[in-house]
Amino acid sequence: MRAALDLAVRGPIADANPRVGCVIERDGIVVGRGWHAGAGTPHAEVIALAEAGERAKGATAYVTLEPCAHQGRTGPCTEALRAAGVARVVFGQGDPNPAARGGAALLRDSGVEVYGGVLAPEAEALNPAWTFAVTHERPWVTWKFAMSLDGRTAALDGTSQWISNERSRADVHELRRRVGAIVVGTGTALADDPRLTARTADGATLGWQPLRVVVGDRELPAAAHVLDGAAPTVQLRTHDPAVVLRELHARDIRSVLLEGGPMLAAAFLRAGVIDEAIVYAAPLLLGAGAPAVADFGVRTLADAPTWTLHDLVRIDDDLRLTYRRK
Amino acid sequence: MRAALDLAVRGPIADANPRVGCVIERDGIVVGRGWHAGAGTPHAEVIALAEAGERAKGATAYVTLEPCAHQGRTGPCTEALRAAGVARVVFGQGDPNPAARGGAALLRDSGVEVYGGVLAPEAEALNPAWTFAVTHERPWVTWKFAMSLDGRTAALDGTSQWISNERSRADVHELRRRVGAIVVGTGTALADDPRLTARTADGATLGWQPLRVVVGDRELPAAAHVLDGAAPTVQLRTHDPAVVLRELHARDIRSVLLEGGPMLAAAFLRAGVIDEAIVYAAPLLLGAGAPAVADFGVRTLADAPTWTLHDLVRIDDDLRLTYRRK
Repeated sequence: MRAALDLAVRGPIADANPRVGCVIERDGIVVGRGWHAGAGTPHAEVIALAEAGERAKGATAYVTLEPCAHQGRTGPCTEALRAAGVARVVFGQGDPNPAARGGAALLRDSGVEVYGGVLAPEAEALNPAWTFAVTHERPWVTWKFAMSLDGRTAALDGTSQWISNERSRADVHELRRRVGAIVVGTGTALADDPRLTARTADGATLGWQPLRVVVGDRELPAAAHVLDGAAPTVQLRTHDPAVVLRELHARDIRSVLLEGGPMLAAAFLRAGVIDEAIVYAAPLLLGAGAPAVADFGVRTLADAPTWTLHDLVRIDDDLRLTYRRK
Repeated sequence: MRAALDLAVRGPIADANPRVGCVIERDGIVVGRGWHAGAGTPHAEVIALAEAGERAKGATAYVTLEPCAHQGRTGPCTEALRAAGVARVVFGQGDPNPAARGGAALLRDSGVEVYGGVLAPEAEALNPAWTFAVTHERPWVTWKFAMSLDGRTAALDGTSQWISNERSRADVHELRRRVGAIVVGTGTALADDPRLTARTADGATLGWQPLRVVVGDRELPAAAHVLDGAAPTVQLRTHDPAVVLRELHARDIRSVLLEGGPMLAAAFLRAGVIDEAIVYAAPLLLGAGAPAVADFGVRTLADAPTWTLHDLVRIDDDLRLTYRRK
């Protein structure tokens, strides 16, 4: 199973599908290996079975995720495992996807020995956003913002460029690389004209680009960077976070990075659909200027949502603080 | 010298006088040891010489701080060392105090061998606030405040009690124990009626109590906690940070903990006399309510003072962030 976990991580992290690894073993010898390279490509089990060929007969298959029972773009893996004559299936995480689950029972019904839950926490940790999304039927939402130590995104006169340091800004591109979509409001898109692509320090776009999502009714100019074709872009003409997340879930987006502005973030906060906040805190005090967090309806202290401090990284004199909803 | 450093730390940390240790050695044998127990008590050298008695003749004295040359509440140590017949003096930190320095030269003039600067960084680290204060002729100012993650001290309706967790609040008493004075404005004294004493978790007052300083013109009621006699209290009828610090320096206060409120802190920020900010950041977002840092005159980003992140401690889901002026 450890070998299957190691294979799984070769898969794409921001994909619609989970990262899955599979190892097939007969008589103590590994006869097949596979990992899933993303939606539309063969599942890990199918690749491993192809390598194993006839040697799959009577073999044991180790899979990080319960083999699927549904017909997607590829056939169900349960059927492929059964047809190949695999005698035993050991899997990690049980499938949380209502559309795909039931694989273990199906295999048992066809006379295959099945053991589930082996290294399940490690297996689940391969795909936290996907697991969340298929369970809650909406993407995992990470809200990222940069602020001064005292919670402001700009000084009184509006100056805000490079409030955080260079390494913090590079870190943001690393975040973008790991999500299915980036969401901003039309206000931010019009005011800042951001590219919203995942780039290296020298400006080159990375291989994977998240979907760029602009929320709101206002028209974007044709010359806007988000319409430059460097990554797919969609405009959602709504202000309702539930509508946004429903639409993105329908597009198989598992994780969303909410990048601005404060009014859009406040709407998401008010709706209680921010799962994680990543805050870059710069080592300066402003005392005045635009607050990073807009009024989202908290009147008294007891009504404020509380968070757990999930992660804490020092980036020179900046801090990257990751909070998760309690 | 290491032995002298170890003795020095037995002294009081928030005192007007520095912590000093002294070891007297003759023919490889320690014949005298002393440390300074605070203003008004004998200096470390005098205690060590008393223990050594006749054996000080021809001995070597190791002192963490250059022996003083001035007549304070006790006689100058240089004179005591010379009179005892000490042949050699090895010291750590050179005396930064204009009133006391010159000890090394005086000793040399009377024929004593002198070596200075031995483990000087360690020696100086014994008394950072004292060193700062005698050099800059004002106390070291630490501004402490608690805030929500987004920089607010209270919700819209004013609720603010226990914004930080219990361990963070205990930590504040540890800070108070280490300073010469606590400073608040009359506004805070009237609104919150704080005790401003250093206490243990069960409410018992600690041995050392800093001077309680209330800044401003408004009269305090006789029943105010700061007038309860649990610690000395002084009211300074001014709003000028320079006047406050001059007055406290004249009282031999070496370190000040500024505890509130935001207007007083803004005046200190504007005056550029906050040397250190200790921020307790609670894991909650408010979106509205009183800002922790009031407008102190920054109009544009380039004008904002920047800080170095000196220390970072996680206290459960709270953070204690220590920033120092760049």
